[in-house]
Amino acid sequence: MTDHPDDRSSPPGLVSLVGAGPGDPDLLTVKALRLIRAARVVVFDRLVSVEIMALAPPDAELIYAGKQTDAHHLPQHELNALLIELARSGRDVVRLKGGDPLVFGRGSEEALALAEAGVPFEIVPGISSASGCTTYAGIPLTHRGLAKGVRLVTGHWREGQALDYDWHLLADPDCTLVIYMGLTHLKEIARRMIEAGLATDTPAAAVENGTTPRQRRVIGTLGDLPDLVAMAGLRPPTLIIVGKVVSLAGSLDWYGTRSAEANTT
Amino acid sequence: MTDHPDDRSSPPGLVSLVGAGPGDPDLLTVKALRLIRAARVVVFDRLVSVEIMALAPPDAELIYAGKQTDAHHLPQHELNALLIELARSGRDVVRLKGGDPLVFGRGSEEALALAEAGVPFEIVPGISSASGCTTYAGIPLTHRGLAKGVRLVTGHWREGQALDYDWHLLADPDCTLVIYMGLTHLKEIARRMIEAGLATDTPAAAVENGTTPRQRRVIGTLGDLPDLVAMAGLRPPTLIIVGKVVSLAGSLDWYGTRSAEANTT
Repeated sequence: MTDHPDDRSSPPGLVSLVGAGPGDPDLLTVKALRLIRAARVVVFDRLVSVEIMALAPPDAELIYAGKQTDAHHLPQHELNALLIELARSGRDVVRLKGGDPLVFGRGSEEALALAEAGVPFEIVPGISSASGCTTYAGIPLTHRGLAKGVRLVTGHWREGQALDYDWHLLADPDCTLVIYMGLTHLKEIARRMIEAGLATDTPAAAVENGTTPRQRRVIGTLGDLPDLVAMAGLRPPTLIIVGKVVSLAGSLDWYGTRSAEANTT
Repeated sequence: MTDHPDDRSSPPGLVSLVGAGPGDPDLLTVKALRLIRAARVVVFDRLVSVEIMALAPPDAELIYAGKQTDAHHLPQHELNALLIELARSGRDVVRLKGGDPLVFGRGSEEALALAEAGVPFEIVPGISSASGCTTYAGIPLTHRGLAKGVRLVTGHWREGQALDYDWHLLADPDCTLVIYMGLTHLKEIARRMIEAGLATDTPAAAVENGTTPRQRRVIGTLGDLPDLVAMAGLRPPTLIIVGKVVSLAGSLDWYGTRSAEANTT
């Protein structure tokens, strides 16, 4: 970190915390696209697709918010410090995150750090994985008679920690449950949900690389999804969906149908 | 409905079920903007903003999916029939809905009707009100230590029906609760949530006309929000948010701060 003697004299740049959506560049918001195209500095996460990063100007500085060597992200406090430092050097910063910044994206932690440092910021919501991946998999989040609501949770816990949900609160047959990062603990999650009262034959699905040409979906039930997912060899990023709405995935598979048509022509 | 003798000879058009987001045209997806700009026929809902409708070509046919006289929507089956008829006449149709088509938008009912009629369709997710309105109100949906998940429900019931939630499932202090169309029943909802165990001083907020220049937000607690909302005279569309994340609305009020600055310059 070099000294910039003139830092204090110039006003800080604006940090835009921008959701890039689940992968398909067509799902960027108009504002996100405009910010990316005009960016001078982009700080981006692993889950932002290469197609989206290619929209940045060729001479923009692209900073990967992770360590290439071990695939771990920068510790959050270092990332916060980086954003503050860049802004204080007078540059506008596009902080690009997969999905939506405020849904399991820790965008609010970065925004709080910026606010405390007196750095101006804005937040641009993105299509969440919960919305984009289910839509492209033909699964509505709500549907009259099948789901009165939606619940989003994460299946990712820090190493060594137990899964500490109140499973009875999650086991609501009238609510669609969407689990982010649920692949590692899928077997345990399914077992706990069944123990908490959800029927073993509750429809359930997994969507890998949702909204991209590499999308794969596995449709089953709460009882057999863990085995089906293992057989298919799904890997992160994969979204898990549990609920009666999954029963519509056959009728509403508009994206898979189109991909299949594209593959045969 | 006029006869089109040549209907059967021409393939049906494509119906695009498109989310328009919560109001700000900048929150349209790139794909939604492209479809609207190229549209020949747009079937739109009341909640799609005039700014967004103005993006359609001047000579496009704009069909309002509601009865102007009584402000009620077309019955869903008539709307489905209209989409099918338009597509069967060989025209591509942009079916534009506020927010996201598959989150309390009944988009999946329209998609099912199209699938059954053999009409090709696609679905374009939109920024949901739950995401857009909270982001512009400075309220994250998840935040480490404050909310491990999100639950979306609707506070709208058909006339004469009782509120039939399992309130204990909703009264989860570790989960952000977002209530669509909750204004009419807000007093009863708050009472039930408190009876079910949620603390009276749980932070809670209401956001009217979220993401638009007309946005107003009211910040309070589960106990006093109904009165505060009544005093402020909030009207639909208003989104209700209950949970500890609302406590960040002061620090993260990037949009209100900017609007206030804009108002004073």
